[in-house]
Amino acid sequence: MTLPHPLARDLTRQLGPRKVLSTPGERRMYSYDAIQMGVVPVCVVLPESTQDVALAVKAARAAGLPVVGRGAASGLSGGAAPAEPSLVISFTRMTRLSIDAARREAHAQAGVVTLKVSDAARPHGLVYPPDPASFRTSTIGGNLAENAGGPMCFKYGVSGDYVRGLQFVDADGDIHDLTRDAYDLAGLLIGSEGTLGLITEATLRLSTPARYTRTLMSSFARVGDAADAVSRAIAAGAVPAKLEFMDRACVNAIEDYLNIGLPRAAGAVLLVDTDGDDLDTVQEELELVERACTSSGGEVRRAATDADAAALWQARRSVSPALGRIRPQRMNEDIVVPRSVLGEVVREIEALGQASGLKLVQFGHIGDGNLHPNILFDPRTESEEAVHALAHRIASVAIRHGGVLSGEHGIGSMKLPFMAEAVDPVTMSALWDAKHALDPQGRLNPGKVLPSPDGLGGAHD
Amino acid sequence: MTLPHPLARDLTRQLGPRKVLSTPGERRMYSYDAIQMGVVPVCVVLPESTQDVALAVKAARAAGLPVVGRGAASGLSGGAAPAEPSLVISFTRMTRLSIDAARREAHAQAGVVTLKVSDAARPHGLVYPPDPASFRTSTIGGNLAENAGGPMCFKYGVSGDYVRGLQFVDADGDIHDLTRDAYDLAGLLIGSEGTLGLITEATLRLSTPARYTRTLMSSFARVGDAADAVSRAIAAGAVPAKLEFMDRACVNAIEDYLNIGLPRAAGAVLLVDTDGDDLDTVQEELELVERACTSSGGEVRRAATDADAAALWQARRSVSPALGRIRPQRMNEDIVVPRSVLGEVVREIEALGQASGLKLVQFGHIGDGNLHPNILFDPRTESEEAVHALAHRIASVAIRHGGVLSGEHGIGSMKLPFMAEAVDPVTMSALWDAKHALDPQGRLNPGKVLPSPDGLGGAHD
Repeated sequence: MTLPHPLARDLTRQLGPRKVLSTPGERRMYSYDAIQMGVVPVCVVLPESTQDVALAVKAARAAGLPVVGRGAASGLSGGAAPAEPSLVISFTRMTRLSIDAARREAHAQAGVVTLKVSDAARPHGLVYPPDPASFRTSTIGGNLAENAGGPMCFKYGVSGDYVRGLQFVDADGDIHDLTRDAYDLAGLLIGSEGTLGLITEATLRLSTPARYTRTLMSSFARVGDAADAVSRAIAAGAVPAKLEFMDRACVNAIEDYLNIGLPRAAGAVLLVDTDGDDLDTVQEELELVERACTSSGGEVRRAATDADAAALWQARRSVSPALGRIRPQRMNEDIVVPRSVLGEVVREIEALGQASGLKLVQFGHIGDGNLHPNILFDPRTESEEAVHALAHRIASVAIRHGGVLSGEHGIGSMKLPFMAEAVDPVTMSALWDAKHALDPQGRLNPGKVLPSPDGLGGAHD
Repeated sequence: MTLPHPLARDLTRQLGPRKVLSTPGERRMYSYDAIQMGVVPVCVVLPESTQDVALAVKAARAAGLPVVGRGAASGLSGGAAPAEPSLVISFTRMTRLSIDAARREAHAQAGVVTLKVSDAARPHGLVYPPDPASFRTSTIGGNLAENAGGPMCFKYGVSGDYVRGLQFVDADGDIHDLTRDAYDLAGLLIGSEGTLGLITEATLRLSTPARYTRTLMSSFARVGDAADAVSRAIAAGAVPAKLEFMDRACVNAIEDYLNIGLPRAAGAVLLVDTDGDDLDTVQEELELVERACTSSGGEVRRAATDADAAALWQARRSVSPALGRIRPQRMNEDIVVPRSVLGEVVREIEALGQASGLKLVQFGHIGDGNLHPNILFDPRTESEEAVHALAHRIASVAIRHGGVLSGEHGIGSMKLPFMAEAVDPVTMSALWDAKHALDPQGRLNPGKVLPSPDGLGGAHD
């Protein structure tokens, strides 16, 4: 039998046994996120308050161990999977949530499930727009750590755009309450994947939901045509609430999983919502999109009923589980490229996939230029080096076209190897300066976001 | 005759005489912004490129002198007024601007005048929404350094919300190009008032203008009634494009200046725009606001024509020059409080003004809860201590009601004395960590945003 780590004994003494997990079986569950395996933590703590978090960080510091924050671990870049033996702080019990209707604000602890914010706000005529695909399980803390997006984010902005204030625990275990004036330290924390501090609570801006929504699906012979339709629709002035893209492999994976009548033969499918408070305008905007799709050779089907629309969006949200059935593992990219080059980028990536012999699917929030090329593989039969080489070539396509590596999933550990190419050495050194300022000893989620300076091969001074 | 500073000679040699100002008369013009007197700079450089900026920063560092960036100096917090003998870098010649219609982006150098972005975008059917009152003279660099707001920002967001990428020169004179993924260093630079780096260029998101706009003015007997009407309108679901407040003193100052028929007898006036692409919805929203105003005892006048609406908004934009005619100096606050306490806060501040015997006016972007109490005074006949004491009491009202010190003007030097009360010592120390990371020697705009740690009287560790 393995003895609990001294940190586990210390935390159990300070917090009580109910808040500490220390057996190998318990700890193993906290070693991975939705996509990446990490290192089994030496101890897991389940705080019930910000004070518990502060205490745990102080204890880990005293024990010389890193700290990794964790929400629902539905992340897709390895952000919550420890890269070193660490204390994992799992926020799932910090679920206090209140709505202040007069201020149009929600106060949510880090462990609140994303969807619950809108559920609680709806009786007051309010909603919380950010809608990552995993919003039924993902948490506010995790969403903010990764600055998560979602289909609604094209029109309504990403998670960080809804933050009025933040509470976080720093590397020393001190508690900070941030507004967004003076230096926007809150903005720096958002998307920093727990490497600069642990977000414990947030004040979120709520908004009123649109009165009307209309949905269409358009299928295209070629992926590039779908991308061209998107550029065309937006250039014509449409600002759809959602604008999603799935390629043939993706559509077929969902169809195998849900069997809801998606067009298996299409090269690509677009899913589009327009919304607003005036039905005529909402329909006019849908027509704009429809014309753009038709002009690019697409076949259009409008959702006849709300149930029809809901089924289409359920399909989109099922991409991740559907792909999981094809190969046991996947390498998920999250590139963002200018919309004007979307067609070209999608075609180039498709060609790279075909040349590699690996199974590649593409989907994403194409309205934002945010694409998720996914390499599906079986590590028992396929070479991980080949997977990484293809992922690298895809990242290079994005960078060459003026794009960035991550739209909404974060850099995590997965995109770390590409950061040195995406960010010039001088700017990388400024990012490291920010890291050193807030976490001088590198105790917070080490091995994420920023590649180790040594890895830059001397380009870093 | 004063000899030019060695730094001026060095810069003249490196950049040529056309880009350097060194005589006392020339330099004096760069010692103040729209509201605050500062120290006369030792030298002023007028760069024409980012490389010029980098060179100037390096030269200042070699000379051991601080660097203060400056746009149009229309700022209202002293941000661009040097607190110490410095090199001032004035961006007015860096005015390159291009529109990429397909990407819906503007690329603007720091010295581009705000209004010119929309002027250049309009032929492409696009606009740049942020509209600080000084947008005919203010620059993009200055707007981003202060994260400026404006009436449109209630519905459309502040300057920083439109930034897709930034170029900046750091304290060492190195040039960085930032996107907004990984650590949002761009977001930290925005609003940091040139204390963390000098913004030299930005990629700005453009949007399509609303098709219809409707305007109303409502007058109220008491200032608190106007604030109550705002809370009521927003609670009823209205999201006006603009929602501005002016008290009686403010209305009368404008009327003295422009003589356009504003209601001199009213205790307070609200100016409201609703906008959108559907006229019925725009008018319905205006009716919502109208009902809220009437219920709070307001008298409503709708703008009958576009010219009528334009005159009302011209009135609002004339507040600053109009107030300048009453007293030679003013202390301009920029507090933001929750909308639910607006009525109470406005009444408390009005009472403080009356008790002080000083001339106090209030106006602001009340939809955001952003109020600008202004103390107008004549330093020859009125005590500056009394002015600061009143300003301090007003800041304390905001903090006590859960508000913050600055909505859009920045902290600058003007609100520096109140920061220690607004930000707890632990968080202040995290803000200093960010400052030290990016500007370890304190060479960038010293004496702004963060009060010196010594000034915290031992509370800082």
